[in-house]
Amino acid sequence: MKLQGLRVISLVHSDFEDLELWYPVLRLREEGAEVVLAGETAAETYHGKYGVPARSDIAFSDMDVARCDALLVPGGWAPDKIRRFKDVTDFVQDMDAAGKPIGQICHAGWVLISAGILPGRTVTSTPGIRDDMENAGAIWEDLPVVRDRNLVSSRRPPDLPAYMAAFVSLLTEYRTNRERTA
Amino acid sequence: MKLQGLRVISLVHSDFEDLELWYPVLRLREEGAEVVLAGETAAETYHGKYGVPARSDIAFSDMDVARCDALLVPGGWAPDKIRRFKDVTDFVQDMDAAGKPIGQICHAGWVLISAGILPGRTVTSTPGIRDDMENAGAIWEDLPVVRDRNLVSSRRPPDLPAYMAAFVSLLTEYRTNRERTA
Repeated sequence: MKLQGLRVISLVHSDFEDLELWYPVLRLREEGAEVVLAGETAAETYHGKYGVPARSDIAFSDMDVARCDALLVPGGWAPDKIRRFKDVTDFVQDMDAAGKPIGQICHAGWVLISAGILPGRTVTSTPGIRDDMENAGAIWEDLPVVRDRNLVSSRRPPDLPAYMAAFVSLLTEYRTNRERTA
Repeated sequence: MKLQGLRVISLVHSDFEDLELWYPVLRLREEGAEVVLAGETAAETYHGKYGVPARSDIAFSDMDVARCDALLVPGGWAPDKIRRFKDVTDFVQDMDAAGKPIGQICHAGWVLISAGILPGRTVTSTPGIRDDMENAGAIWEDLPVVRDRNLVSSRRPPDLPAYMAAFVSLLTEYRTNRERTA
């Protein structure tokens, strides 16, 4: 239970990539983290591209950086919706400014673009949005997983094992640092 | 990479429970195991209940106990198909006789029933097939995860974190014993 005591938010909206949402959520729960799903509204059931359901626990407007240790942004078409909410882009900016871990995969990069946190950062994503990522100022690499300080990114579902290995390792580091400074 | 060097087979057929197939497969890959999907025929794409695809690497008839360290049986409706193949039930029997780890979740128990390995074993499953499990001679418990020697079982998708924590732990033990006796 390497991540016990950590509270993580995963963003959710319609047409998320089913495995890109659920693998990270279940994986962090396996390590003892509390993982909360935040959607446009609380207690709403969203469906993935294939139809796997996911119910939001809280609304985007309920998200509080002080009560959140890390953020997950799933891929699929959901990021196209999620990036339109100021509650979300403000939250992503504040999480990044606080140096808290942020994980993004596939099309999730759109949300980080709209939060304006990518200039000078090294990331990956689905090759489909490489142009958008580079136009937003990011340095783009074609690798299963890329870490730039508090930012971990991956390209697509087959990268999920590498993505979560890197993200669990970053969170373990974060937890150790937090305990040291507590 | 706790499981590097291990080769694991996951059975697959139409209408598997999407997360119950994919979470374990990706999870063991994250630990460095080679996970191979075995279907009725090789190189066939099956779809989960929600539609997530999964392509078989080998056919049931290609499975070889000597070249397999552990077996995963997914839930959903796939087990209703999978249990009908003698190649599968023979394989499950031989894996169990060899004491190799077997993981089963939800409706996967049907496959173990038809393999005849449940008399006297303590297991769980979806409550929907509890009667079938008990009629096959199993002792049934309503817990997120149950381990009986080389057999690990869980009830449903929200149990996946507990299921994989127990299965990774069993595989780590198995790998240590294998190295000790090698």
